[in-house]
Amino acid sequence: MNRILLNCDMGESFGAWQMGDDALAMPLIDQANLACGFHAGDPLIMQQSVLLAREHGVSIGAHPSYPDLQGFGRRHLACSAEEVEALVLYQLGALDAFCRAAGTQIDYVKPHGALYNDLLLRDDLLQAVLRACARYRAGLPLMLLARGGQQSDGNARERRLAEAAGVPLLREAFADRAYLADGSLAPRRLPGAVHQQAERILEQALAIARGEPFAALDGSPLRLEADSLCVHGDNAESLAVLRRLRAQLDSL
Amino acid sequence: MNRILLNCDMGESFGAWQMGDDALAMPLIDQANLACGFHAGDPLIMQQSVLLAREHGVSIGAHPSYPDLQGFGRRHLACSAEEVEALVLYQLGALDAFCRAAGTQIDYVKPHGALYNDLLLRDDLLQAVLRACARYRAGLPLMLLARGGQQSDGNARERRLAEAAGVPLLREAFADRAYLADGSLAPRRLPGAVHQQAERILEQALAIARGEPFAALDGSPLRLEADSLCVHGDNAESLAVLRRLRAQLDSL
Amino acid sequence: MNRILLNCDMGESFGAWQMGDDALAMPLIDQANLACGFHAGDPLIMQQSVLLAREHGVSIGAHPSYPDLQGFGRRHLACSAEEVEALVLYQLGALDAFCRAAGTQIDYVKPHGALYNDLLLRDDLLQAVLRACARYRAGLPLMLLARGGQQSDGNARERRLAEAAGVPLLREAFADRAYLADGSLAPRRLPGAVHQQAERILEQALAIARGEPFAALDGSPLRLEADSLCVHGDNAESLAVLRRLRAQLDSL
Amino acid sequence: MNRILLNCDMGESFGAWQMGDDALAMPLIDQANLACGFHAGDPLIMQQSVLLAREHGVSIGAHPSYPDLQGFGRRHLACSAEEVEALVLYQLGALDAFCRAAGTQIDYVKPHGALYNDLLLRDDLLQAVLRACARYRAGLPLMLLARGGQQSDGNARERRLAEAAGVPLLREAFADRAYLADGSLAPRRLPGAVHQQAERILEQALAIARGEPFAALDGSPLRLEADSLCVHGDNAESLAVLRRLRAQLDSL
Repeated sequence: MNRILLNCDMGESFGAWQMGDDALAMPLIDQANLACGFHAGDPLIMQQSVLLAREHGVSIGAHPSYPDLQGFGRRHLACSAEEVEALVLYQLGALDAFCRAAGTQIDYVKPHGALYNDLLLRDDLLQAVLRACARYRAGLPLMLLARGGQQSDGNARERRLAEAAGVPLLREAFADRAYLADGSLAPRRLPGAVHQQAERILEQALAIARGEPFAALDGSPLRLEADSLCVHGDNAESLAVLRRLRAQLDSL
Repeated sequence: MNRILLNCDMGESFGAWQMGDDALAMPLIDQANLACGFHAGDPLIMQQSVLLAREHGVSIGAHPSYPDLQGFGRRHLACSAEEVEALVLYQLGALDAFCRAAGTQIDYVKPHGALYNDLLLRDDLLQAVLRACARYRAGLPLMLLARGGQQSDGNARERRLAEAAGVPLLREAFADRAYLADGSLAPRRLPGAVHQQAERILEQALAIARGEPFAALDGSPLRLEADSLCVHGDNAESLAVLRRLRAQLDSL
Repeated sequence: MNRILLNCDMGESFGAWQMGDDALAMPLIDQANLACGFHAGDPLIMQQSVLLAREHGVSIGAHPSYPDLQGFGRRHLACSAEEVEALVLYQLGALDAFCRAAGTQIDYVKPHGALYNDLLLRDDLLQAVLRACARYRAGLPLMLLARGGQQSDGNARERRLAEAAGVPLLREAFADRAYLADGSLAPRRLPGAVHQQAERILEQALAIARGEPFAALDGSPLRLEADSLCVHGDNAESLAVLRRLRAQLDSL
Repeated sequence: MNRILLNCDMGESFGAWQMGDDALAMPLIDQANLACGFHAGDPLIMQQSVLLAREHGVSIGAHPSYPDLQGFGRRHLACSAEEVEALVLYQLGALDAFCRAAGTQIDYVKPHGALYNDLLLRDDLLQAVLRACARYRAGLPLMLLARGGQQSDGNARERRLAEAAGVPLLREAFADRAYLADGSLAPRRLPGAVHQQAERILEQALAIARGEPFAALDGSPLRLEADSLCVHGDNAESLAVLRRLRAQLDSL
């Protein structure tokens, strides 16, 4: 069993606007998904975030987005596959410049917000992002949502397209979100979609880390294969959970 | 005597807006200064420009700018040296991503518009851009304005700072602009500052290429050391001059 | 029979980028749809466009868009109805400021690009734009696509929602585009969707102006009620057609 | 003696980024300077801010800026007077649209950040903003920095230009900033330039409100005529001072 990693969206301040407190969360995680200027993160913030990640030995992932500062990359923008490929390449390079200048490099790509969601639905857009990864650097992995499945691989589609493009896949799961019985993420509008209790979050995290089943939203047992857990560290509460989760995983 | 090169600002369309006709000028030049999205050039246009340059064996330079689409990078923006270093790094990486994806790389950096002009006046900003070049890739050259001098090197200041940063300097001269007797570019507002006649442009280009003196605005002889001539190819007239200049230089 | 008007998208330059030649088309039209800065048109261009329209006694319409300079407002952006209402209000006010400063005012609102198309499909977004019109100024009309219908009013849906909001409707038709037999615009990808021949364009314009039937894409007769014809004047060819159309309508 | 007013910069959130807590400060002030989208404030935030101000009977001022979200409007951008006039008009109209839709209107204009500072130095830019005010609505006042003077009016220059343009002037003073003996604001880099103690701030506020002298940075007595005091309410400390200041002024 591979050790499961913790990833966190970071570098999401912009200019005078602060978001999150990366300095507190960075020491607790393994992978930092850094905004690349299209939904958050200006050049100075990108540079500081890269330095902070490097200081703590945290792996750096590019977190590219549709160009939409006002919507924080959460609004779908009807881009062509060609446009998506180009805007992802642009952002990979921009972030990697700060990595190169700091003697390191981007380790993976995790699309943000609406783009992330669109990749789960549209083959042409997923293929565009896979092409961007492969063309940017051979072997650069793409991080996407881990989907569970009863008999079959819940990420069969993503695996097939990623293999065709020669791109390694990283699957991330959520400890603070409920899943449906089919292994997909429960939409936020459903009651119980977001776990509020620390115990529940830690329990689900541990189950995923151990490859053991946990309860889906309807109570049925669900097994999820994942390489990383997406965590949050933007307030006192989530930081407290993150600290316990870090300790829990370290003691496995 | 090194062969003098021809460089041209390109990739300056944006979205639905066309600027110049790069396909016509590209075969005639040696170095393409490609916009990086801050004053012009969106990701798709950057990608197309890189492919066009590669197709014609033209060297690719990053053409970073202050962030100012509306002002086309021509308006001074009071950035700190730290901000300038970061915004140049961002743009270098973004353009280089398309180069990498096309199996090539950026060969040099030529700042654009107001940023270009500010570097001639402000040591801290020039040092910031030099740091960006050096940190991005050892040996990546910076292109700046060639300045003439009677006895001394007109680019002594730039040479000193570039050497301290370990950055090679490329000096560009203008064949269609008049120079003052002190070796600086004549401001556009002065009568005669821009050469209108093709013969005059070709004559000045040839003199610079050969390292021979030519007439400054006041008629006094001026000698200018330059590595490259900045040319334009955005209309029928400038293209005609460019074609003759190309032929002229090839026959040297 | 009301005289049919000619409307044209204008003020679509941005900064250093020129689009169209408004000075040539303005004298030939009745209504200028002026970009408001979100897909094109910066403050200086908006001001110049307002002055040009006023000089020629042309009615000024606001031409608001999703915020997307790079995509020229042609890409759908998943905004909420609340967001659409606010971004339309913002743009109406911005353009109207130049009208007020020039002693005139906006006369109508014609949404641009993807937003225009979305209003034809989504009641909530159409209602949002209608609210923006009504709240901005009582009686401010909204211009939308005229749709034909065999027995019934092709714009019944739009009329119903506009009446509920207390907003007058202006229906625009296209002389250079083919219609399907159901009275909707033929998608551009269909062969024959765009009329190339001037005679054909003028013929269709005249039929619409007179309220007479013309041939749909499948040859069946179609009748369309419209208040305005959308015309183009951005190249020599379209300007030539526009001149003939103007003369033709003036002689009715 | 006119009652002195309290003004506060507000509506400076943007998209997902929060700044300040306007709901807490709004009930305590008289004039809200609302961002217009160029340095902060998107259409939804502008709309909410207008409604909040109206709810508390607070006068609404437009707070236009150079276009610079990343720099929060704090970086000088070398715009021409013509550009400044147009970008101020654009922002006045945009904000006023939300006021009109809410049955109210903008009451004054207070430029933001670098633009505000530039107006104190450059006649052409101040005249441009004055023209924008006068052209937008006859009698619309401009708010600028109150400058003290020993014998003469410290705002003689501003008064002269404003009168020539027919624009009323509002002069704002700072209770939490030290002044130089010549009546100008002490630059922030000087020790003691920003008052930290609540008592000191309240004392200076009261003196200005009463038209009485207070101590300049060098201890010399300074008298300042002002119509409004600029206050802050973006953290617990500044809110506490603001509450005391409000009570103090109300009891005058």
